[in-house]
Amino acid sequence: MAIRAHKSLQGVLWLPCLLILLLFITFTCASPPRRPTLGVLGGYNNPKNNVHNPSLTASDSKKDYQTFYFDQPIDHFNYQPVSYTTFRERYIVNFKHWRGAKAAAPIFAYLGEESSLDDDVGLINFMPENCRRFGALELYIEHRFYGQSIPTGFTREEALKNATIRGYFSSAQAIADYAEVIISLKKNLSAESSPVIVVGGSYGGMLATWFRLKYPHIAMAAFASSAPILYFEDLVPHNSYPVVVTKDFQEASWSCYETIKQSWSEIDRVANKSNGLSELSKKFKLCKPLKDASDLKNYLNSLYSSSAQYDRPPNYPVTVVCRGIDGGANGTDILGRIFSGVVSYYRENKECYDLGDFWSTETLSGWDWQTCSELVIPIGNGPNETMFPASPFVYKEYRDYCVNKFGVEPRPTWITTNYGGHHIKMVLKRFGSNILLSNGLRDPYSSGGILENISDSILAVYTKEGSHCLDIVPAASANDPKWLIAQRKKEVRIMRRWFNMYYDDLRKFG
Amino acid sequence: MAIRAHKSLQGVLWLPCLLILLLFITFTCASPPRRPTLGVLGGYNNPKNNVHNPSLTASDSKKDYQTFYFDQPIDHFNYQPVSYTTFRERYIVNFKHWRGAKAAAPIFAYLGEESSLDDDVGLINFMPENCRRFGALELYIEHRFYGQSIPTGFTREEALKNATIRGYFSSAQAIADYAEVIISLKKNLSAESSPVIVVGGSYGGMLATWFRLKYPHIAMAAFASSAPILYFEDLVPHNSYPVVVTKDFQEASWSCYETIKQSWSEIDRVANKSNGLSELSKKFKLCKPLKDASDLKNYLNSLYSSSAQYDRPPNYPVTVVCRGIDGGANGTDILGRIFSGVVSYYRENKECYDLGDFWSTETLSGWDWQTCSELVIPIGNGPNETMFPASPFVYKEYRDYCVNKFGVEPRPTWITTNYGGHHIKMVLKRFGSNILLSNGLRDPYSSGGILENISDSILAVYTKEGSHCLDIVPAASANDPKWLIAQRKKEVRIMRRWFNMYYDDLRKFG
Repeated sequence: MAIRAHKSLQGVLWLPCLLILLLFITFTCASPPRRPTLGVLGGYNNPKNNVHNPSLTASDSKKDYQTFYFDQPIDHFNYQPVSYTTFRERYIVNFKHWRGAKAAAPIFAYLGEESSLDDDVGLINFMPENCRRFGALELYIEHRFYGQSIPTGFTREEALKNATIRGYFSSAQAIADYAEVIISLKKNLSAESSPVIVVGGSYGGMLATWFRLKYPHIAMAAFASSAPILYFEDLVPHNSYPVVVTKDFQEASWSCYETIKQSWSEIDRVANKSNGLSELSKKFKLCKPLKDASDLKNYLNSLYSSSAQYDRPPNYPVTVVCRGIDGGANGTDILGRIFSGVVSYYRENKECYDLGDFWSTETLSGWDWQTCSELVIPIGNGPNETMFPASPFVYKEYRDYCVNKFGVEPRPTWITTNYGGHHIKMVLKRFGSNILLSNGLRDPYSSGGILENISDSILAVYTKEGSHCLDIVPAASANDPKWLIAQRKKEVRIMRRWFNMYYDDLRKFG
Repeated sequence: MAIRAHKSLQGVLWLPCLLILLLFITFTCASPPRRPTLGVLGGYNNPKNNVHNPSLTASDSKKDYQTFYFDQPIDHFNYQPVSYTTFRERYIVNFKHWRGAKAAAPIFAYLGEESSLDDDVGLINFMPENCRRFGALELYIEHRFYGQSIPTGFTREEALKNATIRGYFSSAQAIADYAEVIISLKKNLSAESSPVIVVGGSYGGMLATWFRLKYPHIAMAAFASSAPILYFEDLVPHNSYPVVVTKDFQEASWSCYETIKQSWSEIDRVANKSNGLSELSKKFKLCKPLKDASDLKNYLNSLYSSSAQYDRPPNYPVTVVCRGIDGGANGTDILGRIFSGVVSYYRENKECYDLGDFWSTETLSGWDWQTCSELVIPIGNGPNETMFPASPFVYKEYRDYCVNKFGVEPRPTWITTNYGGHHIKMVLKRFGSNILLSNGLRDPYSSGGILENISDSILAVYTKEGSHCLDIVPAASANDPKWLIAQRKKEVRIMRRWFNMYYDDLRKFG
C-alpha cells in the first residue's frame, strides 16, 4: 500500500512506520503507581484516581515476596561455547498461601512481559487473589532483557546496543527460561506433583499460551488475558486495532468521534501556517516547542489508543476524554476541544504537557527490538477507515526502519511458523488443552484475540464492556460491575475444573 | 556408579564411556546397499542377503525423485546478524503419486535422521508404498549437518571441527528447518490445505514425535517407528538396551547366550598372556593387529547389539550368529565358537575382519557431537545384569569425554525440558493427538519407546517379533510374516482414520 493523504508526512517516509512502532507497540497490563505518567503501557493509572489499588497493602505485605535469581544460559537452542554463558534471571515467590508440596498444592507462575517484574508484583491482583483461593504458590518470573534480568556484564542499554547480545532477546529463549525456572523451583521444593498454571497478560498472555502449547509437560494450563495471538501477518485485518478504538469513541460520543476525526487536518492546516507550530505549542500548552506536527498527532493518537485500551471502570477514560472534548472548556474550535480532552484525560490542569511521556521507558526500547526482530504486529489503516489519519502498514517501511536501527531484518512469519495462528480453530480443536483466553471487547487488542471456544478446554471468555487485562489487574472490589464479577467467577470455575481433573489424573497415574 | 570388573579397562577410564558412545549411539533405520558393511547403523544388509530390496527399481524410478534446496537460516531462535546466514538444505520430492493441491491430497514428509538422505530415499519403503496408497506427495528433508545439508563454506569435517558452527547442530534447529521447508513447499504448490504426516524412524522418529508436539499447525500427525523417546535421564533403567539384547540371545539359544557371557573374561585371560593380543588377532583373523582387548570387545558388543536391533526376517541375524556360535565350526573352545558366530553373521568367510567397520561413517561423527551436546542416552549395565561385561553409565566419564572432545558440557536434561518425557502418559492423555508410535520388541531401543496407547489418538503399535524400523524399511512382500502384515494394516487403518477426520474438519472449517 502506498502512503496516501498526510502530505506533511510524505517527506519522512519512515514516520508512518515509526508511528506504528511507537504508538501501539507495547501493551503491558500495568505500570507501577510510583510512575504516575500515562502511557500506552500504564493505562489509566493517574495517581489521583488509582484503579490499581495494589493488594500488597491489603493482605500480602512486601516481605511476603522473596526475590531469587536463577543462573540461566543465554542460549537454550545452540551449543556454541558462548551459549553456556549464564545471566541472573530474577524470580519472585510468595509462599504465604501455598498449601505445600505434600498436598501437591498448585503453582501460579506469572510469566513476565516486556517490563520489569517491579511492574507486576503487587499489581497483578489476579495472582494473590487466586493463590489465596487455591492455596497456591505465587511465582513471578522476569522476562530476559527487562528489569534485573540482563545479560551479565552489561547494563540494559549496553545489552540492547550489542548486536550479538541482543540477538538472544527472543520469545523462544524467554519461554525456555521460564521452563528452566519452573522445573528447577519445583525440584528444589520437592513439588514435582504440583500443577502449574502459567499466567500472563497482553504479550505475557501470548507467552503463557505459547508456553502451554510448547511445554505442556511443565504447565498443565495457561491463563492468558488480552493476548492478541492472531495479530500477525494477515490473520486479522491490519486496521483491527484502530477500528476498535474508533468504535469505542463512537459509542461514547458520536460528536467527540467527529471532532477527533476532523482534528488531524486542522492540525495540519495550522501547522502549515507561518508560526503554525508555535501556535500549536501554545494551544496544547506544550513544555517544549513543537518541531513537527506529527509529534503532536502521535501523542494524541497514543492518548486515544491508551484510553480505549485501558477503558476501565470506574472512570472509563474514553468517556472522560470525550466529556472534555464535548465540553470544550478550552474553546469551542476543534483544537480547543481536543485540548480540553487532553486536560480531562489527566484530570488536572498541568502547567505544561510533555509529548515525550511515551518515549522514555525501558519497555519501549526493549519492545522496539522485539517488534523489529520477530513480533511484527501489522497495525495500520487506510483513509476513512477509522477516526485516525490514514497510515497503512507498509512492510517495506517497517523493515527499513528496523534494518536501519538494528542492522537485521525482521522475520515477520516466524511467530506463526513457530507458534501457529493460521487455521487455529481447526488445528487446536484436536490438539492441545487447558488454555483460557480472556478478553474485553473495548480493548483494541481484543481484535487479535480468541473470542470463541475452540474445544472443551481451549476456552474464550470475554466481556463486551471490558478492556485490556481488566480481569487480572485491578483488585476485586464490591464496586465492580456485574459483568466483571461474572467474568472472574467463570474463570475461577474453569481453573477449578482443571485442578480437579489434574488431581483425578494424579490419583490414577500417581 | 564406580567402574567394577574389567580390570583391563581400569587404566583407561574413558573407555566405558567410549564404549557406550561408539557402540550403541547411532540407530538409523537403514544404510544404503552400496555400503555393504555391517554396522550399528546398517543392520543386517549383507549384499548377499539384502533385506532392503529398495522399491526404486520397482514402481518408482530414480528420475521420479527430484532434488531441491532450501535456503535455511543457520539459527531460527536468535537474531544475531550471523543467525541470518543461510545454508542449502536438501529435500527430495516425488510427485508421481500425488493427487494434487486441488484435491488437498496428503503429504508424507520423511524427517531425515543422523545420515545423508541418500540412505533414505528408495530405502524407506513405507514412503512410496503409502504415498501410492493415499495419493500423497513423497517428501524427504535432510537433517542439517548430514549429507549435502552442510553450512555454506564448510566441508562436513570442517563444520564439525568449528566450535561455533557445530553449535547450531541441534534437534530444535533441525525441527525448525523441517517446519520452514514444509511451509514453503506447501505455499509454492498452493497446497496449504493438504494434510501433512511427518514420518521418521529411530532418531528420526523422535524428531517426528517432537515435531507433531511442537508444530501441530504444520503436521496434522506423526508416524514414529522405533523412537526411544524415553531413553533419557532415568525415565527407563540404564540397562534396558543390553537387557533386551540379552533376552533376544537367550530366546534364540541359551547355550549361545552362555558362551557369549563367558567369552569376555576369556578374551581378558588370553589378552593378559604374553603374546595374548597377537593370539587374539589370529583367532579372529583381524586385518590389523589388535592393540587392546577392549577394541575386540567393543566390536563384538556392536555385532551382537546390531544383530538384536535389526533382527529381521527372513534371516534373523541373532539366530544366524547363534547358529555359528553353537555350531563352532572354528573350534569348540569359547573363542573359536565366538569367531564362528562372527563368520556366520557375515555369511562369508572373509580374508580378514576389520574392527574399524563401525568407526568411519559420517553418521558416527555427527552422532558423536549430537550425543555429546543434547542427546544423552544413558545406556549402561552393572555386573551380571546382562550378557555383556559390566559397563555402568557414569555421567561424569561421559561428560569428561565430551568436554575433552568438544570443549562443551552436554545438557543431559534439555531433551526432557524441551520435549517432555516425565509422566508422559498423564501429560499427553489430555494434550496432543495423532501420534503413532510403532515398535518391535526385539529391538533393544523399544525399551525406551511407548508401548501403550496414551489416548485415543496417541497410539502404540508393536509386535513381539519385530525389530528396529522393521515396519518402515523393507518393502512389503508376500513372504512377510503374518504379524508384520497385521502391524502394517493396523498402521494404515490409523492413518486413514486421521485423513478422514482431517477432511471432515476441512469441510467444516474450510
